[in-house]
Amino acid sequence: MYGPRDVRLEARDHPKLVEPTDAIIRLSATCICGSDLWPYRGVELIDGPSPWGHEYVGIVEEVGSQVTTIKPGQFVVGTFATCDNTCEICRAGYQTSCVQREWMNPLGAQAERLRVPLADGTLVATPDLPPTDLIPSLLAASDVLGTGWFGAVAAEAGPGKTVAVVGDGAVGLLAVLAARQLGADRIIAMSRHAPRQKLAREYGATDIVTERGDEGVARIKELTSGLGAHSVVEAVGTQESMLQAIRATRPGGHVGYAGVAHDVELPGEELFYSHVHLHGGPAPVRRFLPELIGLIWNRQIDPGKVFDLTLPLDQVAEGYRAMDERRAIKALLWP
Amino acid sequence: MYGPRDVRLEARDHPKLVEPTDAIIRLSATCICGSDLWPYRGVELIDGPSPWGHEYVGIVEEVGSQVTTIKPGQFVVGTFATCDNTCEICRAGYQTSCVQREWMNPLGAQAERLRVPLADGTLVATPDLPPTDLIPSLLAASDVLGTGWFGAVAAEAGPGKTVAVVGDGAVGLLAVLAARQLGADRIIAMSRHAPRQKLAREYGATDIVTERGDEGVARIKELTSGLGAHSVVEAVGTQESMLQAIRATRPGGHVGYAGVAHDVELPGEELFYSHVHLHGGPAPVRRFLPELIGLIWNRQIDPGKVFDLTLPLDQVAEGYRAMDERRAIKALLWP
Repeated sequence: MYGPRDVRLEARDHPKLVEPTDAIIRLSATCICGSDLWPYRGVELIDGPSPWGHEYVGIVEEVGSQVTTIKPGQFVVGTFATCDNTCEICRAGYQTSCVQREWMNPLGAQAERLRVPLADGTLVATPDLPPTDLIPSLLAASDVLGTGWFGAVAAEAGPGKTVAVVGDGAVGLLAVLAARQLGADRIIAMSRHAPRQKLAREYGATDIVTERGDEGVARIKELTSGLGAHSVVEAVGTQESMLQAIRATRPGGHVGYAGVAHDVELPGEELFYSHVHLHGGPAPVRRFLPELIGLIWNRQIDPGKVFDLTLPLDQVAEGYRAMDERRAIKALLWP
Repeated sequence: MYGPRDVRLEARDHPKLVEPTDAIIRLSATCICGSDLWPYRGVELIDGPSPWGHEYVGIVEEVGSQVTTIKPGQFVVGTFATCDNTCEICRAGYQTSCVQREWMNPLGAQAERLRVPLADGTLVATPDLPPTDLIPSLLAASDVLGTGWFGAVAAEAGPGKTVAVVGDGAVGLLAVLAARQLGADRIIAMSRHAPRQKLAREYGATDIVTERGDEGVARIKELTSGLGAHSVVEAVGTQESMLQAIRATRPGGHVGYAGVAHDVELPGEELFYSHVHLHGGPAPVRRFLPELIGLIWNRQIDPGKVFDLTLPLDQVAEGYRAMDERRAIKALLWP
């Protein structure tokens, strides 16, 4: 990632073990995240050229001397933040705030090989080498599925609940899937793009709302006896989407926010009188990985459908362009 | 309440039944709320002179034709918002957002008599006429106890938890009492006033932190292995106190905010990475009233101690002055 709209594939040395808790993996697949579009669009500034990408699945090639559970030859799924999975914060289920956390981004998962710190905590092995057709779904578990899932959990989606999802990107669509798996009665997807509406319905949306902002809020209230949804997942990260989520939630309801917040300022008085619960942040995907891998392995869910563009890694720049122009929901890259 | 620093006792006609769901009560005691200081200080503007006050206990004198459970002669406790206690929002425990809610404030509980709309939903009768020495505690249940209690519940105070309380007003002190009742292991009161520290200790605080702002946050972290408290109750309502509460909470922890927010803007990105749960708003005191009345009736808690000034109603102006100048935590008024 060189800077705004400047992504290049470059030959680099293979990463080497640095810490005895590291693993080196050969990537089977990687992809581009909606959050990668923030620096791509210049909204988030980066310091000079940097390896990029943080979603990955692959085969373990080598492990450090202190790695005990992860073994060479295993197929593993990792997430966008490292964790020891043993500290008090990890044990409470907030591995993305692990006391030893390191963001994967400068390590760069849009590559052939990747060094993964704290391998025993960060990586989860699949039961066996997966069939090729499961790889996209396992890759989705690395971030977008886990992030949408966290949004739905943070919004307390479940039986008896009406869940609304703000945002029809991959995270929003997979929050629909998560809400369905968690047993929600009714799932309202907010989308005005036909292919995304279609996928939302496949994933379990019962209603589609095309209006946005205040009109979107009014439509959600109409659908919920004037009260608002019990649970609203915010999967965008803008001021408008956060306010839309808060206003579409009934008093006592839950907003789960999974979109990385950019230039958001929440008005305290409105929040106070809204009576909502607010929870979110960088999704602790590691908490959900064993369960999500199980659901994928048993073919109970198919989150890989969010990849509507597949490219070889050397066309990574085209992947960014397609997502930036909303020609693709999410681009998978084969190294 | 005429305006900033201008509170007068005036003779007015006795209130009459207006709706068939109303009750008229003769107040046994009333008081001044910390939130009354916002208009008193001119921070919140009111439209001309208005009856004021929203905390009350008293004897039912008369009920409308549709009131079925509340009877003349009963001693009742009410709260600062009316509710039908039957709508979907009330049944979910958010009676202060009842679809029929009306704020008590323009009705004016700093008086001898008060009209209470939606009497069957709003009022809770005590088992019998109370002994006089229980009246201050029953009056505290009307707002400050219930508000502190909600803050502690919203912060998920409970066994195994370290709870910090930001704010040493009556609500903060009663949040300490609530955290103790809810079984918290450790309770840190943030206070720099000796008499308030003393009452916080009596109510169950195990630690006192006198530092504020960033230093206060650092001190809370020191006391919690560098992680922050599990639960933080915010009982002030300013930008500084909200940020102090969010920053003193560990990732995955809970902030319960009970102070009415004034000029608060929460930075979205900081909130995102803080990983906290945020919940609060106008406390649905009605949810807790039956339990709180029971605890007071059986003399298990003594929230009335927050009243450190008792005046006849005709000295209401002096009560406001004493609270404004922090000479008193809370002033009780005998009509």
